[in-house]
Amino acid sequence: MNILIIGGGGVVGQKLAQTLAKSGTLNGKAISKITLADINNPPSIEAPFDIECQVCDIADPASVQKTIHKDTDVIYLLAAIVSAHAEEDFELGMNINLFGTYNVLERCRALRTKPVVVFSSSIAIYGGEIPDPLGDHTYPNPQTSYGGQKAMGEILINDYSRKGFIDGRAFRLPTISVRPGKPNRAASSFMSSILREPLNGQEAICPVDPDFLHYYLSPRKCVENLIKGAELTAESLGMNRVMQMPGRTWSIGQMIDAMTTVAGSEPAKLIKWDSQPEIKRIVLGWKFDIHAERATSLGLSADASFEDNIRYYIEDDQPTSV
Amino acid sequence: MNILIIGGGGVVGQKLAQTLAKSGTLNGKAISKITLADINNPPSIEAPFDIECQVCDIADPASVQKTIHKDTDVIYLLAAIVSAHAEEDFELGMNINLFGTYNVLERCRALRTKPVVVFSSSIAIYGGEIPDPLGDHTYPNPQTSYGGQKAMGEILINDYSRKGFIDGRAFRLPTISVRPGKPNRAASSFMSSILREPLNGQEAICPVDPDFLHYYLSPRKCVENLIKGAELTAESLGMNRVMQMPGRTWSIGQMIDAMTTVAGSEPAKLIKWDSQPEIKRIVLGWKFDIHAERATSLGLSADASFEDNIRYYIEDDQPTSV
Repeated sequence: MNILIIGGGGVVGQKLAQTLAKSGTLNGKAISKITLADINNPPSIEAPFDIECQVCDIADPASVQKTIHKDTDVIYLLAAIVSAHAEEDFELGMNINLFGTYNVLERCRALRTKPVVVFSSSIAIYGGEIPDPLGDHTYPNPQTSYGGQKAMGEILINDYSRKGFIDGRAFRLPTISVRPGKPNRAASSFMSSILREPLNGQEAICPVDPDFLHYYLSPRKCVENLIKGAELTAESLGMNRVMQMPGRTWSIGQMIDAMTTVAGSEPAKLIKWDSQPEIKRIVLGWKFDIHAERATSLGLSADASFEDNIRYYIEDDQPTSV
Repeated sequence: MNILIIGGGGVVGQKLAQTLAKSGTLNGKAISKITLADINNPPSIEAPFDIECQVCDIADPASVQKTIHKDTDVIYLLAAIVSAHAEEDFELGMNINLFGTYNVLERCRALRTKPVVVFSSSIAIYGGEIPDPLGDHTYPNPQTSYGGQKAMGEILINDYSRKGFIDGRAFRLPTISVRPGKPNRAASSFMSSILREPLNGQEAICPVDPDFLHYYLSPRKCVENLIKGAELTAESLGMNRVMQMPGRTWSIGQMIDAMTTVAGSEPAKLIKWDSQPEIKRIVLGWKFDIHAERATSLGLSADASFEDNIRYYIEDDQPTSV
């Protein structure tokens, strides 16, 4: 099993590779190699098999050609320009999120090897005046360019699969929390940093009110679902390769309470409340009454409680110096 | 009012230009010029204002640049590689239907003039295992590449409008019947030819059974709706510029009966019934329980009866030599 992770330098890509390295198998077959590809050379990981790290710019077909080969069995396409960044830089968002996806799929079509392609879509495809609840068969009416580009990516995954060019599957990722590392340019960045920074003894700013509701998944569960997602049979997917990945809806207040339950009362005191209109304008347009019926019926799952999300961060990611 | 019709050599494009030439106005403003652009030099039309005919390949950004100018007020984007053709030639379908649309929108973005863009989408965006009834807010699960490319076009129209690059509106056209002229490469071509050819005294082949149901609109009503569609205010469209254009669902048997009612019993005798599996495979995947609530509430409309569709063909299109 030769696996390529595009976006392999990102949080989810690195964790996915580490988890696959631990298990050594995907879909019951031994993994022979993982290639981590990203726009900047991604960090390598420890593994009992070959790990290759590559620079790949998916906006450039020649670069994609050098990264996807005849013997690539499974491709995780996780690379993206995130929401606020794609909103600021429309061209870059189109080039990576739409044309980058197209370039990867075109390379697969040219190779005629029909690899499994696991595409990370997003709950940002929901929006507009579409009534709740939302899920697998909701009309996509995104209100960000990122959401639009992901919605188009879903259609490409479906059509390339229908034509037999790939064996695709696309999952709309919930917002990942607690995301380790540094804040990124996603408008949702604060949804991790208000927990991560206080757990690490640092101050953080919360730009929305405690009753702000959103749909979350831990990185650990996300990786587990991405692995199960690659293992689903084509037959089980039917005429639509796209589905919502399970998550749960929590308020900011509930998330902070969970942190207090797990880590005591000190971290919450480090949160500064500072309303930020530009962040609010984006995130209040996002939907949260989301249900993942198909994925749940296919064996994917969400965190049991937000206490779990906090515990997973502490176990998997908290810097040991804290 | 300077109007550009891309796909201006096609049946709908020509009729749209002729209708605009007769009225002389769009949205209450005098028309100063219509440009007809198409992949082959389109036929000119009679008009009391300037008519320009141009070759334009929307797959080529340089060609698009020569066709869309600072003073272009309204763009009708009707050019497409139709269903069976896009299914046979995947690359051509992508290049015209997806990248052609993108090139037109990118030219508008570069000009910063925010023209009205009226995009012809299609009921081919519906499909898969999505439950009936279908309409404005149905999840698009197309089962042809043409349908997928149109679904992506809808998302682009919405996002370029949201960003303020265009003032877009997209309408999912029903199947046009009775379509004049020669059969084309759409899998739906027979849905006109089984009426048109017999009305013209010629034999025609019907590849499906009389109880085959589908969703139709006459060319005359389609043009009327495309004109109303350009005249809708941006405010009336809200957060979603995409809607189903009104049509009506008829069986092949009802359509033939309507022909007999209007034109006597001779034409129906010219229909040869010859089941064609490849056509059936495509068209039986199409949906027909379709409703156009938004467009109807905004003043667009369908034919009152299929007898009207037959009469419009005889009045507008039947060769006088018959």
